[in-house]
Amino acid sequence: MDTSANVMSATSSEAATSSSAHPPVQHPPNGWGPPYLLYLGNAHDELAAKTARGLAHWRPQWCIGQHRRSGCRTTVGLADMDFAQARANGANTMIVGVANAGGLMDADTVDDIVAALDNGMHVASGLHQRLSSCAPIVAAANRNGLQLFDARHPPLLQVGSGRPRAGRRLLTVGSDCSVGKMYATLALEQEFRRRGLAADFRATGQTGIFIAGGGVPIDAVVADFISGAAEWISPPREDDGWDLIEGQGSLFHPSYAGVSLGLLHGSQPDALVLCHEPNRAHMRGLPGQPLPDLRACLEANLAAARLTNPAVQVVGVALNTSRLGADDARDVCRAIEVAFDLPCQDPVSMGVSRIVDRVQSCFGD
Amino acid sequence: MDTSANVMSATSSEAATSSSAHPPVQHPPNGWGPPYLLYLGNAHDELAAKTARGLAHWRPQWCIGQHRRSGCRTTVGLADMDFAQARANGANTMIVGVANAGGLMDADTVDDIVAALDNGMHVASGLHQRLSSCAPIVAAANRNGLQLFDARHPPLLQVGSGRPRAGRRLLTVGSDCSVGKMYATLALEQEFRRRGLAADFRATGQTGIFIAGGGVPIDAVVADFISGAAEWISPPREDDGWDLIEGQGSLFHPSYAGVSLGLLHGSQPDALVLCHEPNRAHMRGLPGQPLPDLRACLEANLAAARLTNPAVQVVGVALNTSRLGADDARDVCRAIEVAFDLPCQDPVSMGVSRIVDRVQSCFGD
Repeated sequence: MDTSANVMSATSSEAATSSSAHPPVQHPPNGWGPPYLLYLGNAHDELAAKTARGLAHWRPQWCIGQHRRSGCRTTVGLADMDFAQARANGANTMIVGVANAGGLMDADTVDDIVAALDNGMHVASGLHQRLSSCAPIVAAANRNGLQLFDARHPPLLQVGSGRPRAGRRLLTVGSDCSVGKMYATLALEQEFRRRGLAADFRATGQTGIFIAGGGVPIDAVVADFISGAAEWISPPREDDGWDLIEGQGSLFHPSYAGVSLGLLHGSQPDALVLCHEPNRAHMRGLPGQPLPDLRACLEANLAAARLTNPAVQVVGVALNTSRLGADDARDVCRAIEVAFDLPCQDPVSMGVSRIVDRVQSCFGD
Repeated sequence: MDTSANVMSATSSEAATSSSAHPPVQHPPNGWGPPYLLYLGNAHDELAAKTARGLAHWRPQWCIGQHRRSGCRTTVGLADMDFAQARANGANTMIVGVANAGGLMDADTVDDIVAALDNGMHVASGLHQRLSSCAPIVAAANRNGLQLFDARHPPLLQVGSGRPRAGRRLLTVGSDCSVGKMYATLALEQEFRRRGLAADFRATGQTGIFIAGGGVPIDAVVADFISGAAEWISPPREDDGWDLIEGQGSLFHPSYAGVSLGLLHGSQPDALVLCHEPNRAHMRGLPGQPLPDLRACLEANLAAARLTNPAVQVVGVALNTSRLGADDARDVCRAIEVAFDLPCQDPVSMGVSRIVDRVQSCFGD
């Protein structure tokens, strides 16, 4: 029995549509998979809960509730449930949807994961620290006959070759971490497909992997294999379609720029979309580290991308304007359009139609 | 009993000197450590044997022989020995000193490692694939009561913070892989110390780790932690001395540039030395991929380094002229000196005195 397929058709008419529009979800039958309880724990802000938020936004039909520790004010807008309630409501898997620097589980999180298992749910996690590395969690999974899935456990990879390959690829790049690269990429997939263009979202992070059912957690691969991982997730394609590759980090983030550069080289992108959040005070997690100038950021990404694809073009700017009013959002988009001669939209509030127009005019689709 | 200390004082007067000049070697007592048999296997060229060659060059007093498969023409200039001969001559550990893309062991290599263990030697390896992941090797180690050491198995790390830290750091960067960054860094350490300046070689690759007795195999860390690893190997220092950090890869190598960028950001270098091999036809391992223009390479490294140290300066160019005649080597160094207004020397054939002169004039030592 394929639980995930059953769930998708049983819970939402949108799911029935997306089951044909998306590549098959690769959840194991009778194992982990939707419906999901989203674990927020002590998530201290919206960004820390980004895995949960991404799932709730892009696959709402799979998400039946959230679990928060007392005092946690972050929400993804779902019903709060304890573990027994979640199981009674049909939750099959708890997704540990909390991102924190270093990716470690604290003692509270371990206790909660054990409790979820003891209440009958599989557990899937996107943290660096593996569920399977924690003895109490492994013991709880074993005594309940349940699965642990570590989305950040990458497949065996080769080093990148840099050799040109068939197919067309678009990569989202960013001025910073957590500026909306995954959202922009998923919105682009939706718009490409709406126009009848073959296009597939290629996931490089844990949230994307939970959404796509496959991918490589590129920040978790051994450093020598970053560009090889990018080549692996977007192999040669001959159908004239596009791979839309989820970007990670930023060339200007002192903690993670190596990941961004390897992903850029391995993706060999034909098209870049620059993602940015206006008015951010400093680089994510690093008070005092200013954001790069947007033009310098764009030029640095183009210069680096040319190493493996000299013909690379920027096709648009995707802004995360979620902290701005609608008028301010329109104004900042317009200012960037004029300054850069590129379409600029917020993928969530405005869609990405003008960016895809630019792709079609640049690449003749 | 500290075998490594005994070996150092017993085999060479140079070893007695270097035991005070170098940080203490961290080989476990009664475990793996020198004297070494260097395993070349089927190494198809000089570069493939670079771990063995580096050890033979920088720690000759530790290396008593080499082992090659029939047909292998690569040599590091040591006596050829089979495993029994090596053991009879006092070899304590076989170093698997073969670098190959991907870092995997072929069947011949596995057979040889098992034979070395069965002849009574510990085995240390710098390959990505762990000795401890290979059942026949683990079985051989167990039945002989011997150790396996995987130099590419990194410590637990934090993500990079980008925060400025005390101390001065010099990083070697390259136009390509395998152009002599480790040699240049070790030569710099020698020259700094000859002048009475406090300076420590910080190893980022397996050969350097075998030489220094510690370090982090930076191409083997999880991608998110590259810059954090660089911060870890060169912590704040207050003695007015220098950390001389071994560079890896190249910002212009499509397979490995992510490692180079993370290392650059985490090192927060005050000084860069650009390493290059003239007349190389293409990037290492990638026929058709040209080397970068040297000035573009220098500018790209400076631009990236400024993210975490805006005051970074280039203090010299280290050329690997091993394939040139002496006259040609001098000419190419002179041409670069004039074009770049920087000291340019081959660390092996010419030393690095003029580069260290420049460091002293720039930084007031």
